[in-house]
Amino acid sequence: MTEAELISLLRGSATDSAARNLDDDVAVLPIGDDSFVLTHDMIVEGVHYLPADPPADVAWKLLAVNLSDLAAKGAVPVGVLLGYMLGDDDWDRAFADGFSGALAAFGVPLLGGDTVAAPAGATRSLGLTAIGRYGGSPPSRAGARPGDLLWVTGSIGDSGLGLAILRGELEGPEDLAERYRNPRPRLEAGQRLAPLVDAMMDVSDGLLIDASRMAHASRCRVRIELEAVPLSEAYLQTRGDGRDDRLAASTSGDDYELLFAAAADDAAAILNMAEEIGLPCSRIGRFEAGEGLVLTDHGELMTLPETLGFEHRR
Amino acid sequence: MTEAELISLLRGSATDSAARNLDDDVAVLPIGDDSFVLTHDMIVEGVHYLPADPPADVAWKLLAVNLSDLAAKGAVPVGVLLGYMLGDDDWDRAFADGFSGALAAFGVPLLGGDTVAAPAGATRSLGLTAIGRYGGSPPSRAGARPGDLLWVTGSIGDSGLGLAILRGELEGPEDLAERYRNPRPRLEAGQRLAPLVDAMMDVSDGLLIDASRMAHASRCRVRIELEAVPLSEAYLQTRGDGRDDRLAASTSGDDYELLFAAAADDAAAILNMAEEIGLPCSRIGRFEAGEGLVLTDHGELMTLPETLGFEHRR
Repeated sequence: MTEAELISLLRGSATDSAARNLDDDVAVLPIGDDSFVLTHDMIVEGVHYLPADPPADVAWKLLAVNLSDLAAKGAVPVGVLLGYMLGDDDWDRAFADGFSGALAAFGVPLLGGDTVAAPAGATRSLGLTAIGRYGGSPPSRAGARPGDLLWVTGSIGDSGLGLAILRGELEGPEDLAERYRNPRPRLEAGQRLAPLVDAMMDVSDGLLIDASRMAHASRCRVRIELEAVPLSEAYLQTRGDGRDDRLAASTSGDDYELLFAAAADDAAAILNMAEEIGLPCSRIGRFEAGEGLVLTDHGELMTLPETLGFEHRR
Repeated sequence: MTEAELISLLRGSATDSAARNLDDDVAVLPIGDDSFVLTHDMIVEGVHYLPADPPADVAWKLLAVNLSDLAAKGAVPVGVLLGYMLGDDDWDRAFADGFSGALAAFGVPLLGGDTVAAPAGATRSLGLTAIGRYGGSPPSRAGARPGDLLWVTGSIGDSGLGLAILRGELEGPEDLAERYRNPRPRLEAGQRLAPLVDAMMDVSDGLLIDASRMAHASRCRVRIELEAVPLSEAYLQTRGDGRDDRLAASTSGDDYELLFAAAADDAAAILNMAEEIGLPCSRIGRFEAGEGLVLTDHGELMTLPETLGFEHRR
């Protein structure tokens, strides 16, 4: 069963508007004119991190992937609840140290949670619930309109390449591995962008799959220009600038960049904001009437790759 | 490492008053004069449920244990976020059915969550975050005062005996097994009791250990009268009324009854409420100046058992 199939089985229980029909990455509870934004993400050993990863990096990642969901709504983090599975003492201690450090780095307090024992040899899984606050109603992933431009922050594909380096599949610089191990949620950019955009989400499973999810939720077609997908210097030097390299970047996961749709009139304001906070924003496509994803490379229509990104499946 | 040790490592990150210093089962976020109450509990295969348990019962339990934490604060449930680990299709489908049914039974909407894949053979663990709303600031477990009486709802020990029956360790009626598989969070009682009590929590790890946690958080001593601990007819018939039987009931987990401290003056109001909603409330002890737990049986001071209840440890 896939994640999408499970969600379809549970959609009948999402009877409150705060659930946003389970189409968004967050729940949004109104409090007067403001909102509490809630997200819950799990990470599983061997799926979201490598068993040999340092526990402090796992702690960082658990916090970062959840804060990334808040960033995609422009929310200011209020606090987190941790669901922790005890393992061996050294790992637990190193995790607690790293988690405390990560919370301090983002200025986010721990509010509570749960600690459970696990049978010996159990696969470790950890959960985090992050709560944020937004003044007004935050952007969903369903608001893109025909005519909107599609944008992404930062660079795409670094984390996927970093994972390959950590797995010993190729050689490359340490910063790529860092992008995999220590993703940086785009909190400031999200807070600045939220009032400007029609739709916003983070790129966690791959640019193409996440963009097609935004298009589906918004009942639009999205057209992506492969040549416009922003690649880092490190990516270009390690892998290259060919069509396959760009497809690999656009279908690998764990970018934790922000993907957003905005009216063409807002382009100047977005570029201005990007300049101010020192985080590039790249225009990589546009929305039109219709459905699905269309991919072009220098104007040439491309066949879509078989896999658009990572889908949880068992 | 134990849960308490991990919490002590993380307490420095609980810098916000919403965390209640990690001494409570919930986080409490003020919204104007009201509060959002947030709790997160995980359940792990082989620890919190038996691998052969029907998936629908696991779903019920996951929801019920979280709602029990809201009940202990008198909060009205607002919704839940589910952290789900995919397994085989049949199990997933039966879980989704059962979870939808449990949500409907309590009138609680699903607001969001996360679904993850797991490596083949992984120990399944599931997480739930429940959000509730309370008018005012809900009772903590830290507010008991010397002179307060200690009370508990319902009956104690049924679920522990039910687990022994399910494990084939003894024979007994199906309702005891039901108490283990399908615990009933005391939502209505909690909402009625919250304005009356000085401290409240649910009994999840065992009456004695949970009462001693309330005493510790409240900086009091608690004195419990073993003969006053309420046992069900089914418990008495299956196990008996001896001192050992009462000790077993008071140290087994998964009761999900409410344990609360209230001024002696409130006894009449409590008994009146119990009558109205048809759920017995039993006075089982009192708080005094000092620290720790004192246990008596018909006035005779008892040596404490080695284990007061269940502590997560690995």
